[in-house]
Amino acid sequence: MKLYDLKAGLNTRRVRIFLAEKGVSVPTIDVDMMKRENASAEYLAKNPMGAMPLLELDDGSFLSESIAICRYFEALHPEPPLFGSGALEEARVEMWNRRMEHELQLPIQDGFVHLSPFWAGRREQAPEYGRQRQAYALQRMQWLDTELAQRRYIAGERYTVADITAQCALLMGKATGSPMPATLTNLERWWKDVTSRPSARA
Amino acid sequence: MKLYDLKAGLNTRRVRIFLAEKGVSVPTIDVDMMKRENASAEYLAKNPMGAMPLLELDDGSFLSESIAICRYFEALHPEPPLFGSGALEEARVEMWNRRMEHELQLPIQDGFVHLSPFWAGRREQAPEYGRQRQAYALQRMQWLDTELAQRRYIAGERYTVADITAQCALLMGKATGSPMPATLTNLERWWKDVTSRPSARA
Repeated sequence: MKLYDLKAGLNTRRVRIFLAEKGVSVPTIDVDMMKRENASAEYLAKNPMGAMPLLELDDGSFLSESIAICRYFEALHPEPPLFGSGALEEARVEMWNRRMEHELQLPIQDGFVHLSPFWAGRREQAPEYGRQRQAYALQRMQWLDTELAQRRYIAGERYTVADITAQCALLMGKATGSPMPATLTNLERWWKDVTSRPSARA
Repeated sequence: MKLYDLKAGLNTRRVRIFLAEKGVSVPTIDVDMMKRENASAEYLAKNPMGAMPLLELDDGSFLSESIAICRYFEALHPEPPLFGSGALEEARVEMWNRRMEHELQLPIQDGFVHLSPFWAGRREQAPEYGRQRQAYALQRMQWLDTELAQRRYIAGERYTVADITAQCALLMGKATGSPMPATLTNLERWWKDVTSRPSARA
């Protein structure tokens, strides 16, 4: 197997942290977005989305979408369970992972894509939307702070893929105009906890 | 169990079709969005997202997020498998379901939310973004048409949750300014196929 990677990417980091938590090592190939390698015909034949991460399997086929890649490794290496265990816990982890994507990751990404000069000319921008999304991300951090007053991790007492999604989203937020307010003490406590794990540097 | 439902909702329809494909019947409670029942303190205590679908379990706890609810029923009623079977097929179905969400459902929803007078005053709107997203949705339907030249269903030769996501997204698109162009013959063939299933009227 080979993993097409992008060091600074949010979704690629989700997969790298996931693999580190599993203790699994996969050879990686860095794709250079600045040189638009991901928009080359050769890369698009592998992943028509033109995005990373992308997993090349030993039979030469490809798997894209970070959570699909994570689920594949969860099936191959069930321990520790990062998607929960048992019907109900698995559904709850899915619920929380989705909430972290829709309430944190997407608004933070949208703020970055629609407001940053970095994306001007690279992606269509709608600055008004970017401002709405940054305000929404902040409001949702406040909500998450109240949730984290009730338990150690996002989905319960165990670290899961929902924590990985949230920590990668908030890391991007810090660098792109949606920083976590220091006044959110539960979120801050959780942040210190998850980022002190060795996997956080994957 | 009880399912909090919204007849016209996209995500609620995904769950209803999923249950119909499984042959499972769950008592439903219609939540009246026009009366803002979903924004009441009582409902928010059940689902802080204020959204439907929401599943109330027999122990009095709640599960939200349509795909989390579907996964829960997949675990309780494995046949027919709508999330695939085996590590690789399950990962491929996840990949295609995600693509259908990000390439069809979200752009179609965004076009509706940011452009329709229905949402004015109900949700913050950024019309420029809505126009960008409707153009993107159209471009992605054209891409999906080329994919469907290669196989019967979205993720392979079997009907899965990825088809459910795509058909619900495209149904919303028809009603909200992102109709499928009749020239996309592969997409049209697939549309007739999936909407002729009895579950499509769930």
